[in-house]
Amino acid sequence: MIKIRIYSIGKNKEPWLTEALTLYTTRLRGKVQIEFHLFRKDEELNRAIEKEKGIIGLDPKGKMQTSREFSCFLLSTIETHHSSLAFVIGGPEGLTEVVKERANHLISFSPMTFTHQMVRLILLEQIYRGFEIDKGSGYHK
Amino acid sequence: MIKIRIYSIGKNKEPWLTEALTLYTTRLRGKVQIEFHLFRKDEELNRAIEKEKGIIGLDPKGKMQTSREFSCFLLSTIETHHSSLAFVIGGPEGLTEVVKERANHLISFSPMTFTHQMVRLILLEQIYRGFEIDKGSGYHK
Repeated sequence: MIKIRIYSIGKNKEPWLTEALTLYTTRLRGKVQIEFHLFRKDEELNRAIEKEKGIIGLDPKGKMQTSREFSCFLLSTIETHHSSLAFVIGGPEGLTEVVKERANHLISFSPMTFTHQMVRLILLEQIYRGFEIDKGSGYHK
Repeated sequence: MIKIRIYSIGKNKEPWLTEALTLYTTRLRGKVQIEFHLFRKDEELNRAIEKEKGIIGLDPKGKMQTSREFSCFLLSTIETHHSSLAFVIGGPEGLTEVVKERANHLISFSPMTFTHQMVRLILLEQIYRGFEIDKGSGYHK
């Protein structure tokens, strides 16, 4: 079983977000276990990721990729880090220096700024899409 | 009142999406009227936009912008087109040639492929963010 943990700052207060995230975690179930870890403060997040090894930070200065490139990147990074990955989404001020230094990779989805709720959803959908691309299903046209 | 119509291919079947879209259309109410027009086929969409004048197409080859750049672009395009704009999101095959030729601008959010549902949500949030940036509120940090 592949394990992916998604760390972020903020609350999970929107019911629509919970519903949308559940949709994709359910679709991934059986193959990938997704865990969301939410923190109020940067320091708490920094402490929580101390034992993580394969860390991917989402940062405005990170590398942008197409969904196909992200799929290859995702699958190969999962292999490198023995089926265990951690994605970190920063708070309003972005990723802390601690996370940036510890991250194995920095990626970006867009030059635009999205809400952290939306970033979680986009990330999860791209993870799902990444596996579907790898599978060669009709999901990604 | 500013009027923005968002044209796309597809269904509105996800309750979470309706809820998320309502959140932002409500926030924009009073200043901007948002209308969603959904079509089953490209031809129907092409016919529906015949009378539109300020058309912005969302296309993988469109120009990527930061949220601040998009805010300036949005506000100035609204002015140019007398407070009436139409955004067009393509179907699985992207925008048709008809839309590309008729569009005044082509923009892109990301090199990644998102679901058309997600594109509608991202677009709406960026429109809201665009007005908040213009207003100088604390929403965009």
